[in-house]
Amino acid sequence: MEESIKTISYTRGTDIGSILRSGSRRQEENAERSSMEIVEQIREGGDEMVLSCLRKFDNFECTADRLLVNEQEYAQAEKQISPELAEAIEIAISNVRKFHQAQQVPDIEVETMPGVTCRQKSVPIEKVGLYIPGGTAPLFSTVIMLAVPAKIAGCRTIIMCSPVNKNGVIAPEVLYCAKRCGVDKVYKIGGAAAIGAMAFGTEHVEKVYKIFGPGNSYVTAAKQYVSKAVCAIDMPAGPSEVMILADESANPEFVAADFISQLEHGPESQAVLVTTSRKMAEKVAELFTEQTAELGRKGYILESAKNSKIVLVGEKNDLTTVANAYAPEHLIISTENADELAETIVNAGSIFIGNYTPESAGDYASGTNHTLPTGGWALSYSGVNLGSFTKRITLQKITREGLTSLAPAIERMASAEGLDGHRNAAAIRVKEINGNK
Amino acid sequence: MEESIKTISYTRGTDIGSILRSGSRRQEENAERSSMEIVEQIREGGDEMVLSCLRKFDNFECTADRLLVNEQEYAQAEKQISPELAEAIEIAISNVRKFHQAQQVPDIEVETMPGVTCRQKSVPIEKVGLYIPGGTAPLFSTVIMLAVPAKIAGCRTIIMCSPVNKNGVIAPEVLYCAKRCGVDKVYKIGGAAAIGAMAFGTEHVEKVYKIFGPGNSYVTAAKQYVSKAVCAIDMPAGPSEVMILADESANPEFVAADFISQLEHGPESQAVLVTTSRKMAEKVAELFTEQTAELGRKGYILESAKNSKIVLVGEKNDLTTVANAYAPEHLIISTENADELAETIVNAGSIFIGNYTPESAGDYASGTNHTLPTGGWALSYSGVNLGSFTKRITLQKITREGLTSLAPAIERMASAEGLDGHRNAAAIRVKEINGNK
Repeated sequence: MEESIKTISYTRGTDIGSILRSGSRRQEENAERSSMEIVEQIREGGDEMVLSCLRKFDNFECTADRLLVNEQEYAQAEKQISPELAEAIEIAISNVRKFHQAQQVPDIEVETMPGVTCRQKSVPIEKVGLYIPGGTAPLFSTVIMLAVPAKIAGCRTIIMCSPVNKNGVIAPEVLYCAKRCGVDKVYKIGGAAAIGAMAFGTEHVEKVYKIFGPGNSYVTAAKQYVSKAVCAIDMPAGPSEVMILADESANPEFVAADFISQLEHGPESQAVLVTTSRKMAEKVAELFTEQTAELGRKGYILESAKNSKIVLVGEKNDLTTVANAYAPEHLIISTENADELAETIVNAGSIFIGNYTPESAGDYASGTNHTLPTGGWALSYSGVNLGSFTKRITLQKITREGLTSLAPAIERMASAEGLDGHRNAAAIRVKEINGNK
Repeated sequence: MEESIKTISYTRGTDIGSILRSGSRRQEENAERSSMEIVEQIREGGDEMVLSCLRKFDNFECTADRLLVNEQEYAQAEKQISPELAEAIEIAISNVRKFHQAQQVPDIEVETMPGVTCRQKSVPIEKVGLYIPGGTAPLFSTVIMLAVPAKIAGCRTIIMCSPVNKNGVIAPEVLYCAKRCGVDKVYKIGGAAAIGAMAFGTEHVEKVYKIFGPGNSYVTAAKQYVSKAVCAIDMPAGPSEVMILADESANPEFVAADFISQLEHGPESQAVLVTTSRKMAEKVAELFTEQTAELGRKGYILESAKNSKIVLVGEKNDLTTVANAYAPEHLIISTENADELAETIVNAGSIFIGNYTPESAGDYASGTNHTLPTGGWALSYSGVNLGSFTKRITLQKITREGLTSLAPAIERMASAEGLDGHRNAAAIRVKEINGNK
């Protein structure tokens, strides 16, 4: 049998992270320039320019007052959701809600010195915007992953943009989830135009302070552009990826299925199997061909398989080393003592432990978020979580006595930094306190 | 007396945030282009290019093996710190440590359904880089604000870059604090070159995953550039600012001192006093001139005063409205019931409550962090805190029984999204479970 997935051997000391990522494509400069232009046009031209973009890029004729999805359209969408799917969506919402509700962080208060009280409290970001791509598959699960935590955080305004499909409507599953999760307003706007409209606001689209959600290279470029000057974004986005750590205890059927499920996302996805077992490597490669034959998105799978690899390692410790160097978005651990191995991982978006924990559980319904750092960004970024929708504000209150104790430190440090005005702001108060004694 | 600070009246419904910020300058495109070029040159040329930048921009001749500060240089620096300053620094470190230690967030574990266990745990970002500007005032307090939480978080590698002064050394206070706070390595590199070296690594400078710290427009542009493709950054940085909310209960001497202390940072700083009391407005404007006359950095203060304003509002509620619209980096509240007013603030970096809580307390020594969002970014960003040095990784483990319950939801949602491979990853396991029964 010809080799279906390229297999390489890991040599200790090599930069395996870079080796594995070397095949992945960079965002085109084209997308960057074009998205910047669209965003700037929308900043200037508002709704009129949004409509012009929709006409040009989505072949969608619309008027400004029809951009906002109305009650009738929601009702229409709801009718198309089967009871079975509605039930599945309820389970997903319930689990995502439970897990994100548990992420609430208590406010803290510390008296660092007598009379010097410092606090830190959480407040929701007032206005957030969610972007849900259209395209071949309507990613309604992402609506749940973004809107549920936004609602728990208490964001006052939650808006959403999504492109219409070829029938001129947003996918009914997307609208249904938006309504069900408490999104305030949904607009029929796609691509860089949507990002520009949410970042700067238009006559009909409310300006937001942070934008969340995946998208193609134009959407990603537009998000990066607005994030420089006006509006925060969730994270740098890129093609999805999975790494699977497996020893001989893994089930090769499951490993192959997880490997493949990653690749069906698109032609730039990447899957990497890292294994101590040559037998496992061979078996998975064989099953890859078998299982793929039966799947609908075979074209994407075969294309992104070119980007994917099997890495043979010498011993179990190497599994940790390779995973931490690659910093995968998703990490599946199918080994003996998988729990112990999981504790050694410091660079990953989300970890799936054991043979019965497929990545698709976390993608949809177990409760964890599926908006995760890709492309090695797991070195520094967390996935979207409740904290992504909140800010931590610090507060302090100092008493006369507290300031009297603290002022000498403030004054000496300010003087050493050459900032007399800073020193004076403490000194002038101490003088008054002493004068009042 | 001629008017020293421009006074305006607030009209409800106007976009006061934009009005107040209209005078503030934008980052020059020049800086953006030039920083990008420097960063790319360092990415290619490594140490040699770093040395060439130091020669060109800092007039500093150095060799690659002398970039790293050595023990002798630390010892030299320590000798120059007076016992009084050392004592002040200890107080600051102790308070900052206490407040940031209290920010530790517990790991969580939730069984969202029987057999479906989701966890979220904190892990430190492995490698972080701190940038400390040189210039007229050596900002050693920023070393404390960045290194102390990095150490508490458990970052494995903490490096720092700072430019040398005209004597060819880094300010002794900066080196002293770096050593005292546990920074692993300090390099004599300034400007965009430092950002490039830390983001991409060179022969002598270790690559890091996240860069923190303030800087001029070149440093800021370099940070934004590397943040697109390789290395996270703390936040978009800009000129510092303060807003003071005051009623007739405030002490105008203190208000004027706080107002001025902000302006001495540089010519682009901004201070805004918002008050219900015309008398307070007039008195502060008068004291501004008086107090400024005695200060060393008068030039900066008078320059940035042009950017600054006093806003007269009709009633107390307007104080909240104006503050939340402006989203100040620092917010001082000197009013009756200041605590209550503080609770109504949702957009601010750090809040200082009452007449005896000058901003300079938080700038140096009370315990809160002074690296805060400026330019309106407090709408969406928190200041640097312990969480800035950590990631939250999610984990999940599902039992056979758990997957049996959850699989129908996964399979239905995957099918509705057209992702058969995702469905199959659950289905193939359920089939095996049922076969084993």
